[in-house]
Amino acid sequence: MNAKELLLILREIKDVSFSSVDNSGNPKCRIIDIMLIEDERLYFLTARGKDFYRELMENNHVAVTALTKNFESIRLEGKANKVGDNKYYLDKIFECNPAMNEVYPGDSRNILDVFCIDKGIIEYFDLSKHPIYRQTLSFGGEKIKDKGYFINETCINCKKCFNLCPQSAIYELNGIMNIKNENCLHCGLCYENCPVKAVERW
Amino acid sequence: MNAKELLLILREIKDVSFSSVDNSGNPKCRIIDIMLIEDERLYFLTARGKDFYRELMENNHVAVTALTKNFESIRLEGKANKVGDNKYYLDKIFECNPAMNEVYPGDSRNILDVFCIDKGIIEYFDLSKHPIYRQTLSFGGEKIKDKGYFINETCINCKKCFNLCPQSAIYELNGIMNIKNENCLHCGLCYENCPVKAVERW
Repeated sequence: MNAKELLLILREIKDVSFSSVDNSGNPKCRIIDIMLIEDERLYFLTARGKDFYRELMENNHVAVTALTKNFESIRLEGKANKVGDNKYYLDKIFECNPAMNEVYPGDSRNILDVFCIDKGIIEYFDLSKHPIYRQTLSFGGEKIKDKGYFINETCINCKKCFNLCPQSAIYELNGIMNIKNENCLHCGLCYENCPVKAVERW
Repeated sequence: MNAKELLLILREIKDVSFSSVDNSGNPKCRIIDIMLIEDERLYFLTARGKDFYRELMENNHVAVTALTKNFESIRLEGKANKVGDNKYYLDKIFECNPAMNEVYPGDSRNILDVFCIDKGIIEYFDLSKHPIYRQTLSFGGEKIKDKGYFINETCINCKKCFNLCPQSAIYELNGIMNIKNENCLHCGLCYENCPVKAVERW
């Protein structure tokens, strides 16, 4: 799966969860529609009177989550910026999402501002697979940061982590243990139990 | 609908979005299972090695969103605290949610800590109704804060807001305009257009 495909899945799911942070530094979230995907750009909108709008004006980092019908979860993180040509995108969005006319009939649509996320990280996570499967992709040129755990060269090959891992995501390579990140829950069981502290967080 | 009923709907939906804030003050979210509802208490769990766990340890405010099959959205805000008797709740949760044994087989469940949200605000929002419908409830004794807009006594009864409101949520009462909050989008169109600034945010 590539990032574009995951963005299109978000558009298909349409109603997704958008998280932001309020001015007290606390998390906020609400269901928001993915209105449009163009290349690797994701568009949504909100009304200027809403708390969500205020939050975006103060901190434009957003985190998006959605769940497919097959219980695969998709997470996206990026920054949301207002588009330059609001009227153009508003009209385009209302054309592609005609139900919007029921909520904001006629000219009332002009209270809405369109936002775009043009780069970010998108993560796919399937907890129903055995072992679980995860994949992290970037779009719009964002850099991927390593997450989860790795085992360093101080590993004494005692295989404690290998025996404990709930997903059998640990294997031996060149005499030391390794974590297969795509199957790792990031649960930290290996990290807590390594007798020589060879398991590190990225 | 009361708060307990909405909590039970969250449990039925089960896979919901949980938002938290990381140590840079940015939003994070992921799909989390609602594992148990007891009275007005909501239980979930996460592994001690996960970023989510760290975030909760630094700021235990969480925001939860979910969508019913009929596209009604439910939002919950509260504080998540670790339960006193982790083993008791872990075992209970695994009994009520047997699929957890596939993800954390055997003793590996002990890497999980159970959290409880025992008070908070829960909001129901139905965008498919005409007019839209919203309801805010509290549970566990949390106090509800007014949100959205109201019209103060400086209203000159020009009816501009009445004519603009996309959801016809404004009505006349005793010679001035009023907002029916349960049908209000909080879009701010009345607020932006009132010629005498009689529309205020709560």
